[in-house]
Amino acid sequence: MATPSARSALLEDPQLRPFLPLLYAAWSDGDMEPDELRAVCEHIQAMPWLRPAARLSLGAWLDPTSPPSQRELRALLDTIERVAGTLAPDRRRDLAELGASLATAEGESEIAPEFANAIAELDARLGASAGPIPGEAAPERGVTKGAPFDVAALSRVLDGEHAEVRAEVRAFLDDAEKRAYGLPTPEYREKVMGWIRELASKGLGLRAFPGVTSKEPDLGAFITTFETLAMGDLSLVVKFGVQFGLFGGSIYFLGTDAQRAAILPKVATLETVGCFAMSEVGHGSDVQNLETVATWEAETRSFVVHTPRESARKDWIGGAAQSARFATVFAQLEVEGDRHGVHAFLVPIRNNEGVLAEGVRAGDAGHKMGLNGVDNGRLWFDHVRVPESALLARFAKIDEAGAYTSPITNPSRRFFTMLGALVGGRVSVASAAVTASKVALAIAVRYATARRPFGGPDAPGLPLLAYPTHGRRLFPRLATAYVHHFAVAGLRARFAKSTSVFASANAMPGDTRELEAQAAALKALTTAQTVDTVHACREACGGQGYLSVNRLPDLCADAEVFTTFEGDNTILLQLVAKSLLSGYKRRFEGPGYRAIARHLAERARVAVTEKNPVAVRRTDGTHLRDRAFHLAALRFREEHMLETAAARIRSRLAKKLDSAEAMLEVQEHLGSLAKAHAERLALELFDEAMAALAPGETRDVLEKLGALHGITTLRADASFFLSQRYFEPEKGRSLHHESELLLRELREAAVGLVDAFGIPDACLAAPIAFMDPAHPTW
Amino acid sequence: MATPSARSALLEDPQLRPFLPLLYAAWSDGDMEPDELRAVCEHIQAMPWLRPAARLSLGAWLDPTSPPSQRELRALLDTIERVAGTLAPDRRRDLAELGASLATAEGESEIAPEFANAIAELDARLGASAGPIPGEAAPERGVTKGAPFDVAALSRVLDGEHAEVRAEVRAFLDDAEKRAYGLPTPEYREKVMGWIRELASKGLGLRAFPGVTSKEPDLGAFITTFETLAMGDLSLVVKFGVQFGLFGGSIYFLGTDAQRAAILPKVATLETVGCFAMSEVGHGSDVQNLETVATWEAETRSFVVHTPRESARKDWIGGAAQSARFATVFAQLEVEGDRHGVHAFLVPIRNNEGVLAEGVRAGDAGHKMGLNGVDNGRLWFDHVRVPESALLARFAKIDEAGAYTSPITNPSRRFFTMLGALVGGRVSVASAAVTASKVALAIAVRYATARRPFGGPDAPGLPLLAYPTHGRRLFPRLATAYVHHFAVAGLRARFAKSTSVFASANAMPGDTRELEAQAAALKALTTAQTVDTVHACREACGGQGYLSVNRLPDLCADAEVFTTFEGDNTILLQLVAKSLLSGYKRRFEGPGYRAIARHLAERARVAVTEKNPVAVRRTDGTHLRDRAFHLAALRFREEHMLETAAARIRSRLAKKLDSAEAMLEVQEHLGSLAKAHAERLALELFDEAMAALAPGETRDVLEKLGALHGITTLRADASFFLSQRYFEPEKGRSLHHESELLLRELREAAVGLVDAFGIPDACLAAPIAFMDPAHPTW
Repeated sequence: MATPSARSALLEDPQLRPFLPLLYAAWSDGDMEPDELRAVCEHIQAMPWLRPAARLSLGAWLDPTSPPSQRELRALLDTIERVAGTLAPDRRRDLAELGASLATAEGESEIAPEFANAIAELDARLGASAGPIPGEAAPERGVTKGAPFDVAALSRVLDGEHAEVRAEVRAFLDDAEKRAYGLPTPEYREKVMGWIRELASKGLGLRAFPGVTSKEPDLGAFITTFETLAMGDLSLVVKFGVQFGLFGGSIYFLGTDAQRAAILPKVATLETVGCFAMSEVGHGSDVQNLETVATWEAETRSFVVHTPRESARKDWIGGAAQSARFATVFAQLEVEGDRHGVHAFLVPIRNNEGVLAEGVRAGDAGHKMGLNGVDNGRLWFDHVRVPESALLARFAKIDEAGAYTSPITNPSRRFFTMLGALVGGRVSVASAAVTASKVALAIAVRYATARRPFGGPDAPGLPLLAYPTHGRRLFPRLATAYVHHFAVAGLRARFAKSTSVFASANAMPGDTRELEAQAAALKALTTAQTVDTVHACREACGGQGYLSVNRLPDLCADAEVFTTFEGDNTILLQLVAKSLLSGYKRRFEGPGYRAIARHLAERARVAVTEKNPVAVRRTDGTHLRDRAFHLAALRFREEHMLETAAARIRSRLAKKLDSAEAMLEVQEHLGSLAKAHAERLALELFDEAMAALAPGETRDVLEKLGALHGITTLRADASFFLSQRYFEPEKGRSLHHESELLLRELREAAVGLVDAFGIPDACLAAPIAFMDPAHPTW
Repeated sequence: MATPSARSALLEDPQLRPFLPLLYAAWSDGDMEPDELRAVCEHIQAMPWLRPAARLSLGAWLDPTSPPSQRELRALLDTIERVAGTLAPDRRRDLAELGASLATAEGESEIAPEFANAIAELDARLGASAGPIPGEAAPERGVTKGAPFDVAALSRVLDGEHAEVRAEVRAFLDDAEKRAYGLPTPEYREKVMGWIRELASKGLGLRAFPGVTSKEPDLGAFITTFETLAMGDLSLVVKFGVQFGLFGGSIYFLGTDAQRAAILPKVATLETVGCFAMSEVGHGSDVQNLETVATWEAETRSFVVHTPRESARKDWIGGAAQSARFATVFAQLEVEGDRHGVHAFLVPIRNNEGVLAEGVRAGDAGHKMGLNGVDNGRLWFDHVRVPESALLARFAKIDEAGAYTSPITNPSRRFFTMLGALVGGRVSVASAAVTASKVALAIAVRYATARRPFGGPDAPGLPLLAYPTHGRRLFPRLATAYVHHFAVAGLRARFAKSTSVFASANAMPGDTRELEAQAAALKALTTAQTVDTVHACREACGGQGYLSVNRLPDLCADAEVFTTFEGDNTILLQLVAKSLLSGYKRRFEGPGYRAIARHLAERARVAVTEKNPVAVRRTDGTHLRDRAFHLAALRFREEHMLETAAARIRSRLAKKLDSAEAMLEVQEHLGSLAKAHAERLALELFDEAMAALAPGETRDVLEKLGALHGITTLRADASFFLSQRYFEPEKGRSLHHESELLLRELREAAVGLVDAFGIPDACLAAPIAFMDPAHPTW
């Protein structure tokens, strides 16, 4: 029987020193089999030169039924280190080699054979163990395709409140003619314009303007339309978004009631085709500093829109190259020599025959990586005069005396209120991004059930889906697509609610800063995830994934720019971080010390309730899959990053850096903070959706996806949690193991899970998505 | 003066319990300023109800000049946990909240104001600290463009021994006509064929066949040609590789001396255009099981090549759709009913007018994600008869009696010897991948020096390159491109040496298994890195990066398939892992116990010399940048993964799984092992190159890049090293900090570093690569 006291004798006995490193090495990785330990033990014990106490001690250390505790191993290592510490550095190696030299030393030939036998036994095992190295051939083992849950019920949960909208869009998309690839640019653009006309003629544009052209209570139905359209051609989606969301949206959000009533019905029916001319080549992300000027001319009561230099040219404007007749032009408003900041003007740029208006020059942005069905272009304005009514005047106008006036007196607040028009775009892009992920996953998962990469017709190998590395590629991304689906649904609902005021006359929006930060965070998170997912799916389909006919190439090329447009992700994350820092500061603006005490107490609570020895080592599956655990961890990380970000800025300010320099130096940290925030927010929104679901089969499968997503998220930043001792290495390994179990459990469900997305067959036009798993033709 | 004994009193004094969590929270993150600690300390000490000993103890804990040690903090946490452990779980929170309630409790109003003042002071600081939140505006601060080293000298080191070859290719590429994008497929294919003809007419194809069409000693010059060509259009590179490397290479490596002499001169001059028909649609990665059959017909002494079913159609074959007149067809050789495995046959598929040969059917693979200048196609053979001489007969032939004969009797060895023909392709693809990374980096770095995303013409903001997040995107990838440059150069040299035997008559290759594994490892590593790099560069250039004129779109789309062709990366990594396991097994095949003892001793050595408390906590810059440290860490990781992989397989075999099942279950682990191996190998090859360089400025800058690459590699797998306690959290954070320093140090060098690649201006055709940083037009 091994006893701790017999073991501890080892550490004191100089005769046993040579064995210390070997014993440590044998136990520390836990890859020795009981038989091996026993064999080594028996033979070592038989060494005649060992004192009885030493023999007893060694036996205790090699008893496979009683492995040493972590504490004992640590003590063992401490002893090794202590002994090693007394040696000169160049002699330390000697200690470690003693074990080996013990077995080979000439002078000890009387004991070597004994030891040798023990080791030889071990050798035999190890030799057997490392081989034989099998070939590629794998045994027959199927992937059950029947989903172990009700796919239709899951579909209904995913579709949510706007199911009829989705059904309408699906019917439109389920048509092989709605697919295009490899077309020359002019034909592709033509095709997309035709599709838009078809959508407008079905009245789908009307729902973009609740209270003006539709009786919808808010923008929920419109964004759902956009989200569902993203199952099809993404050029169509972008074109749809430009016309109704950006161009129409600018009038809807920034125009007066009269302007909305006059223009939007024509926008909704495509009688008026427009574009959204905000970005300038020199100012893609810096709207506040854009250079186009609109100068008020009192005598004629008109504005003169002008491009003062090349860096001010409007660029990447969807529709500007060809199709747009009007542009919402964002320009610095100048009245009597005073600048009032960026305002939006409705400027006619072409007549109905496509001839450019006087003073307007347009160029084509040229061939792009993707989205070549969208005619992105450039615009220059050479003193283009537009009437007073061109100013979208909900938030600012020129009064009868020719003076600038606005209901929002603070210029910065005014600017951000006007920029609120961009929030809808970010919510929409996040929604479309998740949809694009779903399409790619549906193609890749379906292909993986039919494709058997090894074996031949007589001895078919396993389907791709049965390979663990393939499950690792696809399932965590599938789980995240599900979580993000509910996250953007929650965001969409919040956005719809916050903008529902615009369905009434004389609407003035409330404070939407929190919503803007959330939209920015989720836009950055979901689009980066989508780019990752579509590429992983492409690669998972190998050479087939590289063929345009299988859709993945266009998904990759089109979705790529989602990380850039509607706000570059890097810049959005910085904005999110700044918003979090403002909130952090406000927290301490309360009634003095209580806030601080609460703050320190919260950190201490985490130390006691989450970072205690029990929690950091808990490795049972129930706990590892528990979303409460995942959420607590993500909240801890975000809070920690927020505090350290604030501390880093503070210490830089103390060193007399100005605030811009301080922010610049901690830019990387801020990006990580914002990403941590976005991941926490997404999981919380998913959690809210789950809380609203009745218990049952559907919720069970969603919970499982949530668990895989949660574990994946924690593991992706395991170095943070390990560094913070939020979990111990053992727990980190258990998380990996638990994710392997989840991958295996989800294998049978995979096809059902992608079928539940309800993607029309024509959108999965990829031939590889429709191979028959039972009778693969290849 | 703080003394440990005064501090330890804290842990025993029940009166001080409420302070424990706060003290821990205050110290554990190290983000309290000395003044804050002092202020809190002074006021707490003034509390009248504190006993003198308690006051002394608290003072010791809050002395900013004498922070508690890790051990003391750990003891503090232990005490918190112990106290918390005695409370019921639902009361634990109370302990943590005691600190807060202390400050707010009604009954202690006589001391609360004192404490409150201390906290208020802290509050004031924290309040100031978290803000003000600065806007986007950043102060003027330049990026010095003059490289702080001799760019030409670095270029010479990079160019290495084949400088004249590179110069020749650069001259060919430095021509705006060598650029194509957005072309319709037929025109693009035509253009690429024209370029190939130009290359052949310059004699560049001759060097593909040393000893036959050139006097080159080996394939070094040819692969260097290929590598340098990858600065230009990647369709051209692939087409070049198909004609000379794959098609020509199959004859060079598998043909007899007579076959080589007869055919290769025509291949080198493009008189004979060919393709390499190995992959079948059902067998992309499983060459051993491909289904095309070549049946020996004794009476006519000919072979009948046949596609028995759809899964056997040759697919993705570059050149098969249109340009190829011949194909090297890989087929199962059947002689008198016996199968002898896969052999290569030279089959005419079209006449010089492009008319298909009888029995041959060809199809177009259609539009692809990228590389549309290559006419990938499909081939079917309907009992196509070819003469005896069609068999490439270096390793096997039919003798006069009509019997199959081969100098390599073992069928498996024969198969792998023939597959050796693929190694050159993998070496070449790895080289081309690194080149593509360089081009993308050159465009992105040059753009980042000129583009100022914020500010206007009067107050220009910082160039992109000055933003830390931008440096983080580009510089680590630049460092890795450098390391991989030397890694593939080392691999190329080994490959050239090992195949130099083919420059002689009657060559028979030696054992190239190790080289094959290395080529597979580096192909997988560099191509995955390239896909990551070109996308990061695309995103770093924002909307500009999405325009085809700026080259990044084509680089992304073309390089994407590098991870798939010439061996799918996932499958290659499995092969590498299997090769490592075989080696591991062989290690223990030696003279018995010595090998085991050596093995355990090595693990113990690591425990003593690398995993000791000093090393795992060392955080000085010299150590963190030391390649010996990086290499030791990468070796440790690989060895650990190898041992655990062997152990996992062994335990599964012990549970009676068959070897294929066991390998399948540990597939993920094997992939990680192979990646760890590839990263170690790449850094070792870089290290060898550095060892051969004279000390000086050029080597210094390369060492710095190596340091950034090494730190980046370790940080990317920090969770492994933390879990293994190979480094402590503090060291992990120091690695991050050190990488930040390196990013800053490399900022000035960045443009010089990409200029040193020597990419011709026409290959950087991207307008954004040539913006004038001094006078940006936008």
